[in-house]
This record gives sequence, C-alpha cells and structure tokens, in this order.
Amino acid sequence: MKKFINHPDAVVREALVGLAAAHPDLRVDLDAPYVTRAEAPRAGKVGLVSGGGSGHEPMHAGFVGLGMLDAACPGEVFTSPVPDQILAASKAVDGGAGVVHIVKNYTGDVMNFQLAADLLGDDGIDVQTVLVNDDVAVEDSTWTAGRRGTGATMLVEKIAGALAETGADAAAVAAMGTRVNEASGSFAVALTACTTPAAGRPGFELPEDEMEVGVGIHGEPGRRREKLLPARDIAAMSLEAIMAAKPVASDEDVIVLMNGLGGTPLIELYLLYGEVAGMLEAAGVRIARNLVGNYVTSLDMAGMSLTVCRADAEMLRLWDAPVRTPALRWGA
Amino acid sequence: MKKFINHPDAVVREALVGLAAAHPDLRVDLDAPYVTRAEAPRAGKVGLVSGGGSGHEPMHAGFVGLGMLDAACPGEVFTSPVPDQILAASKAVDGGAGVVHIVKNYTGDVMNFQLAADLLGDDGIDVQTVLVNDDVAVEDSTWTAGRRGTGATMLVEKIAGALAETGADAAAVAAMGTRVNEASGSFAVALTACTTPAAGRPGFELPEDEMEVGVGIHGEPGRRREKLLPARDIAAMSLEAIMAAKPVASDEDVIVLMNGLGGTPLIELYLLYGEVAGMLEAAGVRIARNLVGNYVTSLDMAGMSLTVCRADAEMLRLWDAPVRTPALRWGA
Repeated sequence: MKKFINHPDAVVREALVGLAAAHPDLRVDLDAPYVTRAEAPRAGKVGLVSGGGSGHEPMHAGFVGLGMLDAACPGEVFTSPVPDQILAASKAVDGGAGVVHIVKNYTGDVMNFQLAADLLGDDGIDVQTVLVNDDVAVEDSTWTAGRRGTGATMLVEKIAGALAETGADAAAVAAMGTRVNEASGSFAVALTACTTPAAGRPGFELPEDEMEVGVGIHGEPGRRREKLLPARDIAAMSLEAIMAAKPVASDEDVIVLMNGLGGTPLIELYLLYGEVAGMLEAAGVRIARNLVGNYVTSLDMAGMSLTVCRADAEMLRLWDAPVRTPALRWGA
Repeated sequence: MKKFINHPDAVVREALVGLAAAHPDLRVDLDAPYVTRAEAPRAGKVGLVSGGGSGHEPMHAGFVGLGMLDAACPGEVFTSPVPDQILAASKAVDGGAGVVHIVKNYTGDVMNFQLAADLLGDDGIDVQTVLVNDDVAVEDSTWTAGRRGTGATMLVEKIAGALAETGADAAAVAAMGTRVNEASGSFAVALTACTTPAAGRPGFELPEDEMEVGVGIHGEPGRRREKLLPARDIAAMSLEAIMAAKPVASDEDVIVLMNGLGGTPLIELYLLYGEVAGMLEAAGVRIARNLVGNYVTSLDMAGMSLTVCRADAEMLRLWDAPVRTPALRWGA
C-alpha cells in the first residue's frame, strides 16, 4: 500500500507540522506532542481535552478550536497517547476551572488518561472524565473491555465543547458529555482493511465480495463477515443494530452522523444517508441535525459508520452554537 | 472493487436523494437533475451555475449555497451534464441579471455548456462563461483540447460566488472567475486508480511501487509514471511544475489548496501541506489562505492535487466573505 509519507516513524510529527502551518488558530507542541487553541489557557474556562491514537483524522486535533476542544493529544498511529503528553496538554489548557477528559473506551486510552488524571489531581487540578463507548457492534473487543468509542466522540466533543464555552463548570460539562454518549449508538461496516504506515500492508484480508459487519476503527473484527449487500441493506442492518441497543421512539429528535472511514467517496456516504433518512422518516423519527462526511476515520479504510444520537432541546441548541475548528465550522 | 451502492445506474440519483435529505437549504430536482439554493432565483442577483460529471464530490453540488454557487448540474459519473439539464438549472436561478457558467475544460462539458448558453441566449438570458483550465500537467489530454480544469474550480466558485453575492453584474463576476483561473495552477499525483460504479474495476493498473505523475481527475494519464518517491519529493515536483507554468514572485500572496482525490487520508494531506508550506516559505512566498481536505475528488482514488493561486487583496477579501454550503462554510 502506497502512502504520501517520508518515513513511517515520522508521519505523526510531520502531519502536525502541516497542521500547525495550516491553522494559525492552533498551537502545536511538537515535542509532547499536543495541539491547543493558540490563546489557551482561558482563565475561568474548563479545559476540554481529548486524544487517542492517530489515524482517525480529523479527530481529534481537527476538533480543537472555539466551541469544541481546548486540546488534543495525538498518539502514534493507532496507539494511545502517553500520560505525560496528556498531563502537559491538560496543564496547557487549565484556566483554573479544571479540565474534562473525553476518552474513547480503549484499554490503553483509559489507562493513560487515568494515570494523567491522577497526576493532575496530585497537582490540585480537578479532572472529570467522559468515557465514550457508543459502538453497539460488540460488547467487548480485541482492544477493549466493554463497548468501543467511535463516531459519537465528535458529538460529545461538539456538544460538551459548546457548553464549556458558556462558562459551565467541569462537572456540568462532563455530565453533558456523558449524556450525549448515553444517548448515542454507532455501527460500522468495512469494505476494505486499512494500512498503517508502519505495517505497510492491510491489517486484515477481506475477500473481494465480502464485508466486515460491525468493524472497529482500527480494523478490529466486528460481529461477522458476510457477502457484500446493497447499500440499502447495509444501512438497514446498521440502523437496526443501533435501535436495538439504543431505542429511539417515534416523534423523538435525533442527530445523525453518516461518517466515512477514510477511503469511501462522499457520493456513497450521501447515498447511504438517503437510505437512513428514509428509514428514520418511515419510523416517525425526526432527524433534527445531520453530518455527512469523513470525521472519525480509520486511515484509508473503505467503510462507513452510522451514529444516531437521541437529542433533547438543550443538546440541539449546543449543537447549533458557533464552532470554529479545522474540521467543523459554522456560525463563526 | 466494493462500493456502498444499490445499483450502478442509480448511484447519482440516490446520492442526490441523500443530499436533499441532508441539506434543507438546497432544492434538488431529481429529474433534470440539478441542485439549487432553496430560495432561488433571487431577483437581481447573477446566477452562478457549474456542473460536470459526478464522482468529484463535494464538487459541484457541495458548493451550492450562500456565497458560492446558485446551481450545480451533476452528470452521470465522469460524464458531462446534458444541455437541457444546464438550461433548466440556469433558468431556475436566473433572477433577471443573467447567469455565469463555470465550466471545467473537458470537451463534453465545454460543448454542452455552450449549447445551453446558445439556448439561453435565444430566450434573452445573458450568459457569461468562465473556462477553468488550471492543470499544468499536460497541454492536451485524452479528455481535452488544452489544459484540464481541476482544483482551481473551487477557488473560482468561491471567489466569483462571493462577488456575485455583492450584487455585481454578470460580466464582472465572470471576469473575476477568469482572473482566479489565470492566477492558478494545479498538479496532481495518483497512487491508485479510481473505480467507477459502472466499470466495477480500476480504470488503470498502477504497480505497487509506482505513481502516476500529473494525473487527471478521471484517472487520465499525466506526464509519466515513475517509482514512488517520498512525500517531500512529490510535493517538490508538484510545486515546481506549478511554478514553472504560473510563476509566483517572492513576497506575493497565494491561496494554497492541498486537495485529496478521495482515497487519501487527511493525515497524509497535512503531511504534504507541511512540505509545501516549508518550500513556499523558503521561497519567500506568503500563504495567505489555505485549505487542506477532500474537495475536488476522483471517487476513491488515492492521490492528491496541489493548487496554488496568486491572490490579490480583492481575491482575499472575497475568499474571506461568508460562505454556507455543504462542503465549505465559514462566517455564516
């Protein structure tokens, strides 16, 4: 598998050099490494910090900015950030009101964010943690105890980020993040594996007529492999899996994220979104807001994930609040 | 090659169904088909119309909205829209001030937009045409007489669209579009071919250690094939090709678009952008504005295109003006 890189070991650092060059609103510490808003810390504002392995871009660094994250800690590709890195990023954005860690449920991430939180606590900095575990495909996986954190992460970051912008305290921001996570379910289907720069070849082999149903964002196995189906059937099985785990009543409002895993063209994502929208409409569920695009990816994997979040009026108001980040921007 | 589709013949229509469901700000005529702003036409405003083969999403329908296009005409995948379609879209957005057609230089597009313009002229509607031919890789190609229109198209649409929003007349809007095109050069490199839904297999074969240098957005051949090089060398050869055809003096301002062709992860695009930014800085050229992402694509092709536009103060002011479209949004 060919890539636009110089050396597998330098990918994350060199991509951060590019991120810094492209976005003067951000400050990039190449050594830790972490990414913060240029003006961090802001006195009295809760610092919202997330992070995880690289390879899921634009998540997380692409969500740093007004109305969303204060800091992101990119690990090596598909590798958790280390505690020192999380510690440094958290301190860089602590404006005296404490920090909220948004952590996807992977064993390494959970452990390293916890270690960092302990160290921050020793320094008298209040840390609240939001654990994201929205992927309804599997109960446990090769990378996790419990459900994996995937597409809902960006909804948590957007909505909790908007609340943090209003001056809410750390407990309230974390409670909102947890509410969004609990209201969300995600399900992913892959048509191809992804290839990490270090490995240089696909993480698994998927025959030309098969798909991985319930795949994770590192290519970890899902529920089963089966013959490729029409998009309509894939949309239906994804939506059914989500609804079984996180039911939505007719007449409720939802936010829908039709997300690409990196190698799937937008024309296919819109086609899938059309299928999902038709099914939800038929069920009487209102799609109050939606996003279609590549937001939570798995390098070059051809695949999609669907996230449905049952949203109350407060969540929708926070969703609509101004946001200005590299990957998500409106009203600012 | 596997895709999220129902049937190859239905891809464009079903993706438009999804686009309509996702974006209530747009009105989608599924029969013509074309996409306009929901409130079109606006009396007294020049109607900005573009279009071309599908498969380059988000271009063009993803650029319909405030501050950018009034209408887009999607053809079948890699197939020009037909004259009737362009005619209907143009009439739908003509608010009495005429229309401007933004046409990428491909033989079919040029012919069909010209036929539509003739018919509009017969109906007394003033049509100005901006021909986009920014791709410096080849002088002629399998799809064109003259240079191909690629990445600069979105810069033309953004900047001319912002001018149209101020109430400028058709001649002024078209002149600005032409200025942006003349100030822009693009160059693309592919690591893989793309696969159209109808063909079901890659349009060409590229060995595992080779790249296509100067590729077109339909996978048409470029300057040469050669062994894969490090990203730094690819960035350098792309920038040199552009600078040779469209020189930029040191101390001039440019807009840089580091564009993905659909199958390349964002982490690689940022890495490439970092290389380009370093080289331009070393040359004393100021990157006044930039975009990094998938904007002008070639289905699932792994590849990138670089566009450099020499920008004066007026272009930069128009670039910064509010835009609200599915794929580009700020200040609104």
